[in-house]
Amino acid sequence: MQDHGAHLMLELFAMYAAAKLAAEVFTRLRQPAVVGEILAGVAVGPQALGWAVPSETTHLLSELGVMFLMFGVGLETPPPALLRVGARAAAVAALGVVVPFAAGWELMRLFGETGIRSAFVAAALVATSVGITARVLAELGRLETQTARIILGAAVIDDVLGLLVLAGVSSAASGALDWRALGFTAALALSFVAAVALIGAPALNRAAPGIARLHTPWFAVAVVLLFGLAWAAALIGVAAIIGAFLAGMALAEATGEEHALHQQVRGATELLVPFFLVNIGLQLDLHVFAQTQTLALALALTLVAVLTKLVGCGLGAWGLGWRGVLQIGVGMVPRGEVGIVVAQIGLALGVIGQSLFGAVLFMACATTLIAPPLLRPLYHGGPSR
Amino acid sequence: MQDHGAHLMLELFAMYAAAKLAAEVFTRLRQPAVVGEILAGVAVGPQALGWAVPSETTHLLSELGVMFLMFGVGLETPPPALLRVGARAAAVAALGVVVPFAAGWELMRLFGETGIRSAFVAAALVATSVGITARVLAELGRLETQTARIILGAAVIDDVLGLLVLAGVSSAASGALDWRALGFTAALALSFVAAVALIGAPALNRAAPGIARLHTPWFAVAVVLLFGLAWAAALIGVAAIIGAFLAGMALAEATGEEHALHQQVRGATELLVPFFLVNIGLQLDLHVFAQTQTLALALALTLVAVLTKLVGCGLGAWGLGWRGVLQIGVGMVPRGEVGIVVAQIGLALGVIGQSLFGAVLFMACATTLIAPPLLRPLYHGGPSR
Repeated sequence: MQDHGAHLMLELFAMYAAAKLAAEVFTRLRQPAVVGEILAGVAVGPQALGWAVPSETTHLLSELGVMFLMFGVGLETPPPALLRVGARAAAVAALGVVVPFAAGWELMRLFGETGIRSAFVAAALVATSVGITARVLAELGRLETQTARIILGAAVIDDVLGLLVLAGVSSAASGALDWRALGFTAALALSFVAAVALIGAPALNRAAPGIARLHTPWFAVAVVLLFGLAWAAALIGVAAIIGAFLAGMALAEATGEEHALHQQVRGATELLVPFFLVNIGLQLDLHVFAQTQTLALALALTLVAVLTKLVGCGLGAWGLGWRGVLQIGVGMVPRGEVGIVVAQIGLALGVIGQSLFGAVLFMACATTLIAPPLLRPLYHGGPSR
Repeated sequence: MQDHGAHLMLELFAMYAAAKLAAEVFTRLRQPAVVGEILAGVAVGPQALGWAVPSETTHLLSELGVMFLMFGVGLETPPPALLRVGARAAAVAALGVVVPFAAGWELMRLFGETGIRSAFVAAALVATSVGITARVLAELGRLETQTARIILGAAVIDDVLGLLVLAGVSSAASGALDWRALGFTAALALSFVAAVALIGAPALNRAAPGIARLHTPWFAVAVVLLFGLAWAAALIGVAAIIGAFLAGMALAEATGEEHALHQQVRGATELLVPFFLVNIGLQLDLHVFAQTQTLALALALTLVAVLTKLVGCGLGAWGLGWRGVLQIGVGMVPRGEVGIVVAQIGLALGVIGQSLFGAVLFMACATTLIAPPLLRPLYHGGPSR
């Protein structure tokens, strides 16, 4: 058994211990713990200590981490609370897609890129990665504010829109745009979200007494639902984390204050979320700074990414007061892994090269790091926990 | 994002949902849930539905599952309780290693195998895989009985002895036996176990009030310790799960009844353990039945595996009454993944072929499936939970 698994264990230990150490230090310095955990990923990653490298393992743990993160957030979000902010969330999402896409396109044309390359990079600017914002809001205990709910609702709609944009640019890259297929995907995705919120959640409420009588604990039933909806979401092309969020939301009322369930979800979350955050840090490619052209592009892209979500989503939130507008605008800034996935598809299709890919990767990480310190004062953030 | 991760999600959903469904059905039929979960693995695995296949992903989840399983068991086992049964556990472990090895060797010679091949198969018969037994005892709420503690203690010692046997046959396969290296490994492994039990646990007790004042929750500190000791164990060549068990044991007194910690560990366990059990089922190779010679060997090996642990460990437990002797003898029967690892090393070294490997795999799965239904009546098992 010598060496069997020793490397895996080192990787798990290094990632988790570094994340928790950084979280403790950052919390004491009254900084967001998430930023510490992402930077811990840079420290143990291939660019520095080299104890962990992005792999199937880190990807799986990261995926599970963000799924449980969004599941836990969903658990605190009963459907009526989300439906109440529906129209507002839709406006925030729509403007938060149109403005970044248009600006991203213009920026890339300015840098002399072709139309299809510009479209891919612009598409990578579209989808908000709500995991980071949700984590910060949870840290601050602000998940139940109106703006938090608008952000969560907008993120769900935003993901569906982002999916359509990506499907559009992908089909444009491989030939002509298929508008009928796009419309079908849109209808499927929206029906899925509506079915879970309007049919699934009430059905679960009615089934709750029966579920409580099973030998299987509530937590296991919840995990079955989580994996099931994540699979369904991935099947129809929405991100799996949206399925996870919807699973939590559908369970929010059925389980109510079920104490054991919430503690057990917290256990799974505490175990897995650090891997999600560390994994972002692992992927941060500092070599982008080596080439001036790429560096300029990366910085410009990041600036555009921040400003366009601020302006787009802020416009959508108009009338909620300056603080509300800023909370929502900043909350929608992180692109995280969604932008990275879009760029990876562009890379795989041969549309964009390593340099553009590096710039998008930098933008995704930078927007993720920028948002938390800005969010905290906006939500009156003192030291958390 | 189409298809991105859809297959992974299907795999996660199929494995988890099948395991929980089977557990519910088996519990209602008053059968051990673990058996249902292993058979669920056969059902969704490559031999039947094909929704999940053994891969890096299933291996990682399974590894995490058995680590948390043993960690949770350790949490219910304060060091003094284990030290009290130390001498008895050592006797059970020693005889439970010598008898299966000798009998396995003789059986293989009878089948006309060479010395080194016989030694490898005999080595695969040595190490008890305590995860299954621990799970059944936890299901029955019997972890705090004297025989359960003897089984756990014996499993720790047994793992160290199994490591030495494996190191012995491996070095014999690649040339001459290096007795000095073997002695060094033995001393290192025993010092590790002793250091955690005698120095680590009291040190943690003293540090407990300080840890409780950290921003980092107890659960996260516990996970750091779990990964750290699992890594240390793997480094010196003991199985990572022994490190996990020791981490739990070291924390048992320091955390006491810390309610949130126990619930959160239970969440991680409920999430991950089904993957450990399903993964055993995924690996069960029914093709072994196709060849008469291999089938005969597999059945003979399984019979010897069951009888020798019963006799060997039973002898070690002499004087505890018939029921105690049988509880311990049966509790030590499962070989599970440890035997599989030994066989994999033999396969990798080119010592044993596919046929012997298949027979050992069959033995490992069969002993794992046989033990739970026998254990329950011995522990007065009514319906569990």
